[in-house]
Amino acid sequence: MTRRTIEALLFDVFGTVVDWRSGIAREAASFLGRHQCGADPNAFADAWRRRYAPAMEEVRAGRRGYVRLDVLHRENLLAILPDFGIDPKNVPDHEIDELNLAWHRLDPWPDTVAGLTRLKARFIIAPLSNGNIRLMLDMAKRAGLPWDAILGAELVKTYKPRPEAYLGTADILGLPPSQICMVAAHNGDLAAARACGLRTAFIPRPTEHGAGQTTDLHPAEDWDFVAADICALAEQLGA
Amino acid sequence: MTRRTIEALLFDVFGTVVDWRSGIAREAASFLGRHQCGADPNAFADAWRRRYAPAMEEVRAGRRGYVRLDVLHRENLLAILPDFGIDPKNVPDHEIDELNLAWHRLDPWPDTVAGLTRLKARFIIAPLSNGNIRLMLDMAKRAGLPWDAILGAELVKTYKPRPEAYLGTADILGLPPSQICMVAAHNGDLAAARACGLRTAFIPRPTEHGAGQTTDLHPAEDWDFVAADICALAEQLGA
Repeated sequence: MTRRTIEALLFDVFGTVVDWRSGIAREAASFLGRHQCGADPNAFADAWRRRYAPAMEEVRAGRRGYVRLDVLHRENLLAILPDFGIDPKNVPDHEIDELNLAWHRLDPWPDTVAGLTRLKARFIIAPLSNGNIRLMLDMAKRAGLPWDAILGAELVKTYKPRPEAYLGTADILGLPPSQICMVAAHNGDLAAARACGLRTAFIPRPTEHGAGQTTDLHPAEDWDFVAADICALAEQLGA
Repeated sequence: MTRRTIEALLFDVFGTVVDWRSGIAREAASFLGRHQCGADPNAFADAWRRRYAPAMEEVRAGRRGYVRLDVLHRENLLAILPDFGIDPKNVPDHEIDELNLAWHRLDPWPDTVAGLTRLKARFIIAPLSNGNIRLMLDMAKRAGLPWDAILGAELVKTYKPRPEAYLGTADILGLPPSQICMVAAHNGDLAAARACGLRTAFIPRPTEHGAGQTTDLHPAEDWDFVAADICALAEQLGA
C-alpha cells in the first residue's frame, strides 16, 4: 500500500492549512477603517491575493532573482492601495510593514492543529509553501502548528509549481519523491508534485475564496488520497 | 537590558544541546563488537569527531563546495576504520549508512527539553548547527526538541564559524544581529557570533569530551549570559 511507503508529508499552507482570506480581511478591515475607505475587506484580501501568482511568476520565469514572499506581498500591497482610493504616499512605512505581517498571523482551519499533531506522530511533517521561513515560523508559533521543520520556497530559492521546489525539498529530506506525499487544497499544486514523482493528497477547502468559490471544489485527478480535512487524512493514513 | 531586546535564541547543538560522545560511543560499541574490535567506543567517538573540524575547513576555506555534514561524517567514518583494524571494504554500505545515522540519534542533556520548552514560550528558538536539516530534524523528532524552525549550515551553505553562517541566519530571521543570542558550550562559536554582532550565552558542558575534559570549562570572555544549563538560562532570561 502506498501509505506504508510514505515517510514525509509536505503541506501547502495558504488555503490548505490556514484560512488566509478571513485573516487578511480581518486586519484589512481596521486598516481600511483608519483610512476612511468603505470597501469590503474581503475584496481587499482578494485583490491582494490576485497579485500573488503573477508576482511569483517573475521569479519562476527567471526574469527576477529569488526574493522572499514578504517582499512580493509588500510590493503587491502598495500596488493595490490606489484601487481602494488610498495613496501609498499617505501611509507611513511602519503601517505598511505591519499590515504586511497579517500574512504571518493567519488562523488555521479548525481541523488543522489536531490533524497535524496526529500525523506528526507517524510521519515527518513540514510546510512546502511559497511563504518564506520567518513568515511560516511566526504563523506556526502563533497558531501552534507542530511542524518538524520549515521547508519551502526560501530553501530552494524558487516558487511552486516549479519542479525544483518539490525535488529540492525531497533532496533536503534525503528521500525519493515516492516516499513523500504532497498535501494541498489545490489541484495544480498536486499535479506539479505528481509530475515530480511525489504522492498526492487532496483536501478540499470549499470556502478558501469565500462562499461563491468555484475552483478546486473537487479532485481533478485520481490523487492517492482524498480527505475531507487533515484529521480525515490522518485517519486514512493510519495515524 | 540586553535580554529585553532579544527576539531569537540560536543554539549550537553538538555538545550544547545533545551529548554526542555518549551517543556515538553507544552505537559504536555494538558496531565494534560485531567486527571483533576490542577498542574503547569512546576512543572511536573521539576519533570520529576529531576529523569533524578539518573536514569542514575544506568547505569554509573554499577548497570544496558545500556538502552536508552527513556526507562529511560518512567520509570521516570510512577514514578512521583502518585505525581500529577494520577494513572498510569488509563493511557493507548499509552498515556504514546505519552507523552514520548515529549522529541523528543523540540524546539531549537532562536539562535540554525543559529549558528549550521554557525559552520557546518567550523567544524564537532554533538550532544554528553545522548539522544538516535532516540530521537536526531526526534528532529533534526523536528527542522532543521543540524548535520553531531548523536553521543552520545547510541554509547558508557554509559552516560555522564563518561569519556568513551567523549573518545569513540573522537575515533569514529578518532580525538585526543584536536581537539574536547565540547559545553555545564553546567559546570559539561565541567569539565568532559576537564578532558578527550577536548576543552570546555560554553554557559549560564539562563532560562533553568525557571526564578529563580540559577545554571550554569556563567562559573565555565576558559573554552576555553565563548559565549552568539551559533551564538556568531560561531563568536568567525571565522565560
